[in-house]
Amino acid sequence: RINSDRLWDSLMEMAKIGPGIAGGNNRQTVTDEDGEGRHLFKRWCDAAGLEMGVDEMGTMFARREGTDPSLPPVYVGSHLDTQPTGGKYDGVLGVLGGLEIVRSLNDLGIKTKHPIVVTNWTNEEGARFAPAMMASGVFAGVLDQADVYEHTDKNGKKFGEELERIGWKGTEKVGDRKIHAFFELHIEQGPILEDEDIDIGVVTHGQGLKWLQVTLTGKEAHTGSTPMPKRRNAGLGMARVIELVHEIAMDYQPDAVGAVGHMEAYPNSRNIIAGRTVFTIDIRSPEKEVLDAMDARVREGIDTICEALDIQYKIEQVGHFDPVTFDAGCVKAIRDAADRLGYTHRNIVSGAGHDACWINRVAPTAMVMCPCVDGLSHNEAEEITKEWASAGADVLFHAVVETAVI
Amino acid sequence: RINSDRLWDSLMEMAKIGPGIAGGNNRQTVTDEDGEGRHLFKRWCDAAGLEMGVDEMGTMFARREGTDPSLPPVYVGSHLDTQPTGGKYDGVLGVLGGLEIVRSLNDLGIKTKHPIVVTNWTNEEGARFAPAMMASGVFAGVLDQADVYEHTDKNGKKFGEELERIGWKGTEKVGDRKIHAFFELHIEQGPILEDEDIDIGVVTHGQGLKWLQVTLTGKEAHTGSTPMPKRRNAGLGMARVIELVHEIAMDYQPDAVGAVGHMEAYPNSRNIIAGRTVFTIDIRSPEKEVLDAMDARVREGIDTICEALDIQYKIEQVGHFDPVTFDAGCVKAIRDAADRLGYTHRNIVSGAGHDACWINRVAPTAMVMCPCVDGLSHNEAEEITKEWASAGADVLFHAVVETAVI
Ligand SMILES: NC(=O)NCCC(=O)O
Ligand SMILES: NC(=O)NCCC(=O)O
Repeated sequence: RINSDRLWDSLMEMAKIGPGIAGGNNRQTVTDEDGEGRHLFKRWCDAAGLEMGVDEMGTMFARREGTDPSLPPVYVGSHLDTQPTGGKYDGVLGVLGGLEIVRSLNDLGIKTKHPIVVTNWTNEEGARFAPAMMASGVFAGVLDQADVYEHTDKNGKKFGEELERIGWKGTEKVGDRKIHAFFELHIEQGPILEDEDIDIGVVTHGQGLKWLQVTLTGKEAHTGSTPMPKRRNAGLGMARVIELVHEIAMDYQPDAVGAVGHMEAYPNSRNIIAGRTVFTIDIRSPEKEVLDAMDARVREGIDTICEALDIQYKIEQVGHFDPVTFDAGCVKAIRDAADRLGYTHRNIVSGAGHDACWINRVAPTAMVMCPCVDGLSHNEAEEITKEWASAGADVLFHAVVETAVI
Repeated sequence: RINSDRLWDSLMEMAKIGPGIAGGNNRQTVTDEDGEGRHLFKRWCDAAGLEMGVDEMGTMFARREGTDPSLPPVYVGSHLDTQPTGGKYDGVLGVLGGLEIVRSLNDLGIKTKHPIVVTNWTNEEGARFAPAMMASGVFAGVLDQADVYEHTDKNGKKFGEELERIGWKGTEKVGDRKIHAFFELHIEQGPILEDEDIDIGVVTHGQGLKWLQVTLTGKEAHTGSTPMPKRRNAGLGMARVIELVHEIAMDYQPDAVGAVGHMEAYPNSRNIIAGRTVFTIDIRSPEKEVLDAMDARVREGIDTICEALDIQYKIEQVGHFDPVTFDAGCVKAIRDAADRLGYTHRNIVSGAGHDACWINRVAPTAMVMCPCVDGLSHNEAEEITKEWASAGADVLFHAVVETAVI
């Protein structure tokens, strides 16, 4: 078993970097705070005798040598970046859980045949720069590195320039590494495990996702003196699309979810009918057919709404991944580990996207989940117990070591 | 008749200060640009031999002495501040139209019995700091000066401190002046005059208004992994209220209008269900009963919407004025002037709020309107013709001089 106190202490130590305003964290990707978090992680890796590699996307790879260095490593990790109002565990548990495995192996003097590499993927959250899981997407060859370097945040700053600015743009070419297997530990971010009082989620599938950024163009006009029939109200259009997305998701749930979380109105003045709105639709389903059907209905609905309001629209897909089926062998390794350790477990579908979803395309991959209080995540109040964390890390430990072979 | 070239040149000169991004202006109240605009106006007033007074709300009063200085002055004016994406004429025409009257009287060597005071009221737009018509509201005793000094903009800056910072917080006590009559020239900001090809709107009434700032509180949660029935989505709540406001306005139109132009979602991230939204409802009607009925229906509707979504709400009234009936004598002076000058005219109800609406409570008041292209205002593309402007200023000239008595 891993050292649960040490794991917890490290989680609390990392949470001091980029504190939020309500007990959580604001350590968004390629900010100064992200840079600081990376330095702390590197210091811990150095102390554990790991060798650090950094690729051109800023992803950190901390290697513990195997007894046969020619074998491809087993990778384990997640991400250290957070939402603007994020929790202390989303992503962090997976990275520090990986580090804890290595520390425990050191304590126990255990050597594995395959090297083990603890990984911190850059920009998993996609909050500051779309899309989510950016670096793992480039690693898996799904996203284009030159393209995502140009992606801008709300202030017009470019991802590539910000990565360079914080000093974490490495020189290693992205995606060149051979991966024997990849394991990711993550909090569930949903309520199922806690509701059913189960220790471990064995993640068999991941939901597919589409992010559609919509721009509506109406006409700025005076709210008081413009007659109702003369209006071309992009704010009303946005409201109707938000409702549309909700209705479509409700039609397909529990096999789907959907909402609009990002929304902007211009010029955003109390007495001006919005001439332009920009917002992002997030729709998801574990079934590709459902995801595609939702996408089609959303587009059709937007067309109808805009026609009725005499406004124009533009739809850009700024994120997309199809539903994922994780590797049967890796899934079994996790289930077997939970059994061996005596933890209760169940199969689960990940509602969120994870770096594991992309890496699964280029290497055998699976995920371990542990419960979180009230299923709450992407909220500073995100919480887990030390016991949940250590159960998850124990299962990760056994699955990784089993795969890396003693 | 006034000098229409000089009036137009002054309008174009003022429009150079705080240029927008699309041909209009961004000269929001108590910004550096507002300060610069005030200096230009003061230079022009000095050149015309006027004596400037500035009150504690920053309102500028430029006095042309009467042959009987003991008589209360006739006031004429409007505002020089603009929306963030405002036009070149909204407000400015009324101030520079007043200046042009005085310049024309100087040219013609005409003296009036009553002094004439050209006025620039501070913060008419209410874009940066709610409510609109702030300084005239304090002047009329409807708003409290100490209270509005504390009102903050989006960056938390206080109105009173910003007024002081730009150097235009005067020492004169607000509301102490005796007003014989007040006249305001303004562009219509609606389509009626242009559609009917009429030169002059004789404003008999002004619509009433309510601004209701609504805060909805749900729960921030992950858009992907939170089951649909577990959501408390403040973004969806805002969307439903926007639709509600539209439906209510449609039910009462053409005797009402309504929309939401200001809206914010928090934390405004693509994959976070909004935990909080803040937005402002703008509802208006020329009938007090209708305005009150709309207000009641809005509040009832918000309650129902929030109950269904399990979210909390707070409603703050951040702006309010009841419908206005302008002074019969002043209205007649305007109608007579239009007749005398041979301009086509019709009675009209102002859809927008104006400083005249507040001053009407403390002095005989009326307004002159001229058409604007497509009825468009609160848009940088706001446009009028030189002929429309000079017809409006001519009518203003005659009504003011008639009232100030030669
Ligand atoms: N795990 C997680 O929150 N990932 C961010 C991408 C997503 O929205 O699913
Ligand atoms: N005239 C004008 O646009 N005033 C601003 C207040 C309002 O919204 O009516």
